[in-house]
Amino acid sequence: MNNNNFATGLKCIICDKTYPPEHLYVCPSCGIQGILDVQYEYEKINSLITPEIISSRPLNHWRYREFLPISQSATLPQLHVGWTPVYDVPRLAKEVGVKKLFLKDDGRNPTNSFKDRASAVGVLKAIEFGFDTVAAASTGNAASSLAGLAASIGLQSYIFVPQRAPEPKVTQLLIFGATVLRVKGSYENAFDLCWEACEKFRWYNRSSGTNPYLVEGKKTAGHEIAEQFTGTGGTLNGGKMPNWVVVSVGDGCTVGGVGKGLQEMKLAGLIDRVPRLLGVQAEGAQPILEAFYSETDLVPSETNTLADSIAVGTPRNWRRAIQQIKLSIGEMIAVSDEEIFDAMRTTARLGGVFGEPAGVTGVAGAKKAVERGIIKPNETVLSVITGNGLKDIQTAMKAAGKEMSIEPNLRSLEDVIPKQSHVVV
Amino acid sequence: MNNNNFATGLKCIICDKTYPPEHLYVCPSCGIQGILDVQYEYEKINSLITPEIISSRPLNHWRYREFLPISQSATLPQLHVGWTPVYDVPRLAKEVGVKKLFLKDDGRNPTNSFKDRASAVGVLKAIEFGFDTVAAASTGNAASSLAGLAASIGLQSYIFVPQRAPEPKVTQLLIFGATVLRVKGSYENAFDLCWEACEKFRWYNRSSGTNPYLVEGKKTAGHEIAEQFTGTGGTLNGGKMPNWVVVSVGDGCTVGGVGKGLQEMKLAGLIDRVPRLLGVQAEGAQPILEAFYSETDLVPSETNTLADSIAVGTPRNWRRAIQQIKLSIGEMIAVSDEEIFDAMRTTARLGGVFGEPAGVTGVAGAKKAVERGIIKPNETVLSVITGNGLKDIQTAMKAAGKEMSIEPNLRSLEDVIPKQSHVVV
Repeated sequence: MNNNNFATGLKCIICDKTYPPEHLYVCPSCGIQGILDVQYEYEKINSLITPEIISSRPLNHWRYREFLPISQSATLPQLHVGWTPVYDVPRLAKEVGVKKLFLKDDGRNPTNSFKDRASAVGVLKAIEFGFDTVAAASTGNAASSLAGLAASIGLQSYIFVPQRAPEPKVTQLLIFGATVLRVKGSYENAFDLCWEACEKFRWYNRSSGTNPYLVEGKKTAGHEIAEQFTGTGGTLNGGKMPNWVVVSVGDGCTVGGVGKGLQEMKLAGLIDRVPRLLGVQAEGAQPILEAFYSETDLVPSETNTLADSIAVGTPRNWRRAIQQIKLSIGEMIAVSDEEIFDAMRTTARLGGVFGEPAGVTGVAGAKKAVERGIIKPNETVLSVITGNGLKDIQTAMKAAGKEMSIEPNLRSLEDVIPKQSHVVV
Repeated sequence: MNNNNFATGLKCIICDKTYPPEHLYVCPSCGIQGILDVQYEYEKINSLITPEIISSRPLNHWRYREFLPISQSATLPQLHVGWTPVYDVPRLAKEVGVKKLFLKDDGRNPTNSFKDRASAVGVLKAIEFGFDTVAAASTGNAASSLAGLAASIGLQSYIFVPQRAPEPKVTQLLIFGATVLRVKGSYENAFDLCWEACEKFRWYNRSSGTNPYLVEGKKTAGHEIAEQFTGTGGTLNGGKMPNWVVVSVGDGCTVGGVGKGLQEMKLAGLIDRVPRLLGVQAEGAQPILEAFYSETDLVPSETNTLADSIAVGTPRNWRRAIQQIKLSIGEMIAVSDEEIFDAMRTTARLGGVFGEPAGVTGVAGAKKAVERGIIKPNETVLSVITGNGLKDIQTAMKAAGKEMSIEPNLRSLEDVIPKQSHVVV
């Protein structure tokens, strides 16, 4: 056990070279493409944990701490991360066209997105490596999540945002006390400057794509899905794993993390099979899907989608995403913004969950996958809602429809409401 | 046990007359002022429940179902309501000036506010009474909560909003499929039309002020506080209740509900004392505070505060609020919008929780109460964060401060960041 945890090394996803599990972002030989994957002493972990031990722990994502690259005696952030609810939503299942559909609402995390799972691990690694400041280039969920977790644990944070970053998104950063730097230029300018600043000022760089430890936090969603379906007291779907787990794909980290978490649960004997992964991209940002089906290296693309959390033209973690989807015998699909807007409405109205565009992209993808014959009508599906709809109310306004304007009297009301409501008592 | 629950009657808060626990909004003798309080067979409830029985149940607000006026065999909404986390926040405690400060983050509820506790009970009562449609006049958390819970359980919802209701707030209603009616007029016009429409079309009126069952759902926050501090495994504050529970006050329902929940836990022998309640109003909307200290009937007032969720000039539940605060030997205080903005920043930066203005008004009030000598520095305090900051990003922008604009190079960055960060490695 190194550094009081079970990580044994960092293995380059390209050249397979392994490095000690210390402070390192990418493979020194392969450069920025050389994403590092954390390796563990799984035999030791699996000999230590049992379903009973896990089920005796508090209901948050630290209950799988042996599978996380953190000191097993670290002081954990207080913010309650993970163990997000899973809902069985029969009316939405009918709309999507499957026997059973489940939603796992990760918008219920502390800063309202899936990214809290990664940031929570990131701030612990920052402390372990002796940093007092964390940084990120992002306007999105990764940044607000980092700002929130850093505030909660007492680290400083610097966030680099591109010129065009919308004020409402910047607000959540500022309120958490992040120093926000609006860089006159593109997202790539902000990303590069963040990288340089981290080197120069010794700040810890949060980027999930290029920080091997961050993506490990995302595994816990996979761990939880396994436990919520099959663990002690897991009664969803009759105690059986769903056939499919559906995740929206931008940078590739989320589907990669969820897949790795599910594989670990199988390796530990806690589930007997890993569900097939369906990775869903927006049609306006589908470079990983193209690499997946063409079996070539990724070709960066321009992006054009309102699902900003997955609008990634140069995804850093495409290899990991493809690897995990293939390992699960999974598939990928792309959906239009109109299909995403439709899923925002149906997920809220038939499932009671208001997700941001990228948050419901999985539901849109599941529906399309049924239409295309990829998912069969008699199969069971879980879709991860990766972010809360309040995150991007401007886009939600485009999907939500309009209210009706009336005079303050019953006559005016009766003119606009459907006739079947006119039940006189 | 009536209607398969432990409610025995509805008692008018003015004339003390008691009615059967059936479908009734206010006291027929006293009219709109005659708020009805649900009575229970507490001896029977207390003989049935033990800390062990409660602790064996799922971690949501239905674990206290004997104290709720719902059929004990009702099909519960799936949305995970309640059992919101409590955080021990020492840096914020220091800022507020007390020995220990705890935050209970009710922004973690399904539609991101405390109101979900009430709406969850409301939709069950609607179904029990045979309604297929629910309605409310509101632009705020009560409305979005009702729309979300109704969607989740398959009820139709109609929401009446005043002319000036901002589009972002209306969006959350529309996305959940509510029929939203923008009434050309004031909030009072919308309220009156909603009332008339509920009568005419047989819709269930959600207003907490005038619906005796809704406020009962709010009690569960009090139940949870009792259990989280003293129950099986309750280790916060050394297993002792905090000296104070601080709640922001608008209509009066929330502090009334929390107080009643705490009193019930004492009556059941699960806690040995009820914390003192501090009810906090905005200076621009403090009619309950004025009635509390003048010991006269409430005088409606104009409102002028950006904390919109507690900007209530004609609070319906002022008697219940004052009754509960007095019963706990509590106090009231009012804070300015500037103090609320300050609390938004400090609660996020030192506590890691981003609350909406009314959500952090309790923290602002606790600080002021320490300055005034009401709360002593050696006391322990819990403040309920009643709503998530993403609910009102426009107002948060006023509190959040500004980012810095820089050219995309290190020199430009060095010009703006504090000198102590210039650690060259």
